[in-house]
Amino acid sequence: MARPPQEPQALDAALERALDAARRGPLAGGNPRVGCTLLSPSGEILAVGYHRGAGTAHAEVDALSQLPRGGARGSCAVVTLEPCNHTGRTGPCSRALAEAGVARVIYALPDPNAEAAGGAAWLRGHGIEAIDARQAGIAPALIDRARDLNAAWCHAVARGRPWVIAKTAMSTDGIVAAADGTSQWITSPEARACGHEIRAGVDAIVVGTGTALADNPRLSARDRSGTALAHQPVRIVVGSRDLPEDSHLRAAGVEHVRDHDLAGLLERLGERGIRRVLIEGGPTLVSAALRAGVVDEWHVYRAPILLGQGRRAIAPLGIATLADALPIRLVNSRPVGADHLDIYAISQEARDVYRTR
Amino acid sequence: MARPPQEPQALDAALERALDAARRGPLAGGNPRVGCTLLSPSGEILAVGYHRGAGTAHAEVDALSQLPRGGARGSCAVVTLEPCNHTGRTGPCSRALAEAGVARVIYALPDPNAEAAGGAAWLRGHGIEAIDARQAGIAPALIDRARDLNAAWCHAVARGRPWVIAKTAMSTDGIVAAADGTSQWITSPEARACGHEIRAGVDAIVVGTGTALADNPRLSARDRSGTALAHQPVRIVVGSRDLPEDSHLRAAGVEHVRDHDLAGLLERLGERGIRRVLIEGGPTLVSAALRAGVVDEWHVYRAPILLGQGRRAIAPLGIATLADALPIRLVNSRPVGADHLDIYAISQEARDVYRTR
Repeated sequence: MARPPQEPQALDAALERALDAARRGPLAGGNPRVGCTLLSPSGEILAVGYHRGAGTAHAEVDALSQLPRGGARGSCAVVTLEPCNHTGRTGPCSRALAEAGVARVIYALPDPNAEAAGGAAWLRGHGIEAIDARQAGIAPALIDRARDLNAAWCHAVARGRPWVIAKTAMSTDGIVAAADGTSQWITSPEARACGHEIRAGVDAIVVGTGTALADNPRLSARDRSGTALAHQPVRIVVGSRDLPEDSHLRAAGVEHVRDHDLAGLLERLGERGIRRVLIEGGPTLVSAALRAGVVDEWHVYRAPILLGQGRRAIAPLGIATLADALPIRLVNSRPVGADHLDIYAISQEARDVYRTR
Repeated sequence: MARPPQEPQALDAALERALDAARRGPLAGGNPRVGCTLLSPSGEILAVGYHRGAGTAHAEVDALSQLPRGGARGSCAVVTLEPCNHTGRTGPCSRALAEAGVARVIYALPDPNAEAAGGAAWLRGHGIEAIDARQAGIAPALIDRARDLNAAWCHAVARGRPWVIAKTAMSTDGIVAAADGTSQWITSPEARACGHEIRAGVDAIVVGTGTALADNPRLSARDRSGTALAHQPVRIVVGSRDLPEDSHLRAAGVEHVRDHDLAGLLERLGERGIRRVLIEGGPTLVSAALRAGVVDEWHVYRAPILLGQGRRAIAPLGIATLADALPIRLVNSRPVGADHLDIYAISQEARDVYRTR
């Protein structure tokens, strides 16, 4: 089959459309965000598809489904990630592309998921040109955007352990609860709404029994209007103490992990396909996660108040002297209502993800 | 005498030049920063002067000194602050302007210093037109700039107590010294250089005996090259403990205040003409100043590290419950080397000064 005549400019535009579409997909659910643009042999955009979350059509199938039977014959698929070669809840995309008569597949990044990878090789074995975006001459900045789109997911998949975000809401002097234990609310309604948006982007939320007993939280993800979202993260409580029968978390089917082996817990979550985890504290659990070296990002909502005494945001980390301090890296800072949200990269992977910011 | 024909645009330009000149004057030294532009009757700029610090010529006299004898006759003086009517280390500016034959004086702001005020009235009593900038039709934004130029000084003079800046260098979790007491250096060389620049802009630096004994600081103000500046702030140590004979502060002639009445100390400093004071800690002294309600600005150098345990940046403030937290207001935030400098307004006066930022 002759090589279709798509120009580099047409391929750039196609990847850009695919990236924009991919961003509409959910962060949570265990799958990467993927977009796909189908180009005619002369370079016109035929369809743009994206993945809407676990259990729904992959981006390639979503794009193909928009065309009449035979409409993709001889076309070029530009995809933000190498097409999967894996039958999970949906069939392999590599086969769907071949069956639709797609002549050429260009993907921005190889699939880091060993289980799903191999789509490009399978396509080549079936007479379809499958090359990465750099070989196809696509602008490097667009390839970088494709990498950023799923950077955390790629690290999680490659190392077999979820991407972990730890969250703290504290006073400017680093206190999370006043001397009498009051802590609701240190931060503004806007900061709490922002916290809900973060929850909506994770597969699991972990708290300690201390927080569960003190605050009796629901840990549900809600939209701006306060309505619970359709996707709710897995809720996990860590610690040896029992929760009361009538606790909100028990009603929500919380998983109770009684040991304190966070690395082990995260490995088990990774095996279940969980890619993004939020640790909502309190200080004992956040500090245990920092000590275990499993935190990728630390989100700090800093309220413009001083408390002077009360519970510290970070419990002892076993650091005795200044030279042993734990280095963190500020990668984003913005006002959220009356507060400030600072995002710090902690793991080496997180530092790499945010290297240019 | 006929009113000189200076146009509003010429007056705006004259005040702008005076403001730019005034900014070259020092923050420290107890005097406000003042600039003066002399305009010919037809609106040409004849001279621009400014005040270089206590004991040197005031802005009006500096501008007049640039003209030949008689060269200011019939001119208009545009000044950032009402001319003083007070004989201190230099003679009153009101008289100098009259003697030089200046016909018209326009000042951006009235003098808040009761002792030095009255210059405009004295000029009017001697047949010279003296009006404020608003009456003269000068752009309000320029008058605001004149107010901002000496806002802290004006508050200090009006209330008879210096403007107080408290400084803290801490880890992101609010720790100023690790568990073993190590604290040098939590922050980067750039942050420490920035601290020296702040020192150069104050009349006095106050530390507690704890800091003096632990760090044996010099508390000298140095420029970027590390050279001690000509102006050195008064150094004050507060606390009952003695300093060793060979301490750097004793060698520098530190004043040792043995009681803990910070409000009383600041009042005495105000009576001595001290307008800007820097409290460099440690936590006991900074927290005592916060409890006494005498801190206007809190400068926090936040290092990108976590310590988990060690000495808290803010000692107990007597706050037992969240509702009683001390509100602070972030008015400026910027990276300084590897660290972040956040400036918070604490007193009501400071909130007013930074109301628009």
